Amino acid sequence: MSSHHIVREKQEPALIIANGEACNDEMLGQLLEWSPFVVVLDHAIYRVLDRGIKVDAWLGDFDHGHDFDAIRERQHPLEIVPTPDQDKTDLEKAIEFLIGRGFPAANIVWATGRRADHAITNITNLVRYKTQIRLVMYDNNSKIFPLAGTFEKWYTAGTPLSLIPVGAVNGIVTSGLKYNLTDETLTLGHRSGNSNEAATDGLVRIMAREGDLLIMECWD
Amino acid sequence: MSSHHIVREKQEPALIIANGEACNDEMLGQLLEWSPFVVVLDHAIYRVLDRGIKVDAWLGDFDHGHDFDAIRERQHPLEIVPTPDQDKTDLEKAIEFLIGRGFPAANIVWATGRRADHAITNITNLVRYKTQIRLVMYDNNSKIFPLAGTFEKWYTAGTPLSLIPVGAVNGIVTSGLKYNLTDETLTLGHRSGNSNEAATDGLVRIMAREGDLLIMECWD
Repeated sequence: MSSHHIVREKQEPALIIANGEACNDEMLGQLLEWSPFVVVLDHAIYRVLDRGIKVDAWLGDFDHGHDFDAIRERQHPLEIVPTPDQDKTDLEKAIEFLIGRGFPAANIVWATGRRADHAITNITNLVRYKTQIRLVMYDNNSKIFPLAGTFEKWYTAGTPLSLIPVGAVNGIVTSGLKYNLTDETLTLGHRSGNSNEAATDGLVRIMAREGDLLIMECWD
Repeated sequence: MSSHHIVREKQEPALIIANGEACNDEMLGQLLEWSPFVVVLDHAIYRVLDRGIKVDAWLGDFDHGHDFDAIRERQHPLEIVPTPDQDKTDLEKAIEFLIGRGFPAANIVWATGRRADHAITNITNLVRYKTQIRLVMYDNNSKIFPLAGTFEKWYTAGTPLSLIPVGAVNGIVTSGLKYNLTDETLTLGHRSGNSNEAATDGLVRIMAREGDLLIMECWD
């Protein structure tokens, strides 16, 4: 497993390692390689130590009793950040911690899989921070990020793209997709833009007038 | 893997086997044992055949070319149901198929994990059918079902229960939970009722005035 030894500026995204299902080592290695700052959540510290991953900060409510000295011995230096707030998830606390430190962007791994309540909350909470920090969540089959302003990216023909509304999203306009939307509404649980794709090699544009939209690049 | 040989009435839930991540064999075996009717979706037919599971119907758009004779040879009798509608997911088609057949209830497995777009769409679409059929989705860490009317169930103290609003849900009233809600609003992506739990050994009651609420029993 790669570690990161070079001090980097805050231009590259920080990395949050949550406590859901692990992604594959190659994905994790690539994200670690460019990350200037790595935060690990709560019990994931043990999984991270076991893999020999170097992290910068460890954040959690720490209500289960950890041997802090033993952990510091295995990982040094390590910033330990107690966050006892019961009204927020560990992932929310980590995102807000990075916003507070001035990071403009963060990648998130190990935040899906396992418990469905945690996974759906982690995924949909991304929208809450869309004006404060650029967040991208990765797992073995998915790259997930909230729409903020107008999204524009070049894709090869056939790349799967799903538009998942968190609640109701109005005034969605797209171009470059196989099934384009023209000032349409998507509503989670009732009408979502699942399994769309890039129509040709070229730019895809997505915008929305109102509401919280997640864009997902997923693969089997 | 168990199969089901006894013809049963439609009182027990039918079972839908989707094409996401497989649940553990024990869970699948228990659900199969009591199921009067088993539907498998699209490419999952091969995974099901490989495990020697007996199914009643196979449903999909079949746009990838299957050797139907070979499949019939391995599984007989088998009702093959082509559903070419591109505006619906395979899971939606299967639910509507079972509603059409008069089933009052269905369990769903293999509908989460893998691609996040499919998982979140499958989970949140449950609410769409809440007045037509009783649906429960299972995976290795989760039991998920939509609130329809008033929910009332006896739990042991500390059982984790999450209230996940699909969009905004107003007028939520609960009793028996550690963190009860009194005519409150939950909004996905902004305020969810993640990680609540039964306060004592006793009845938990959950109701909502308006909106689509998912109840999740999840475990690590």
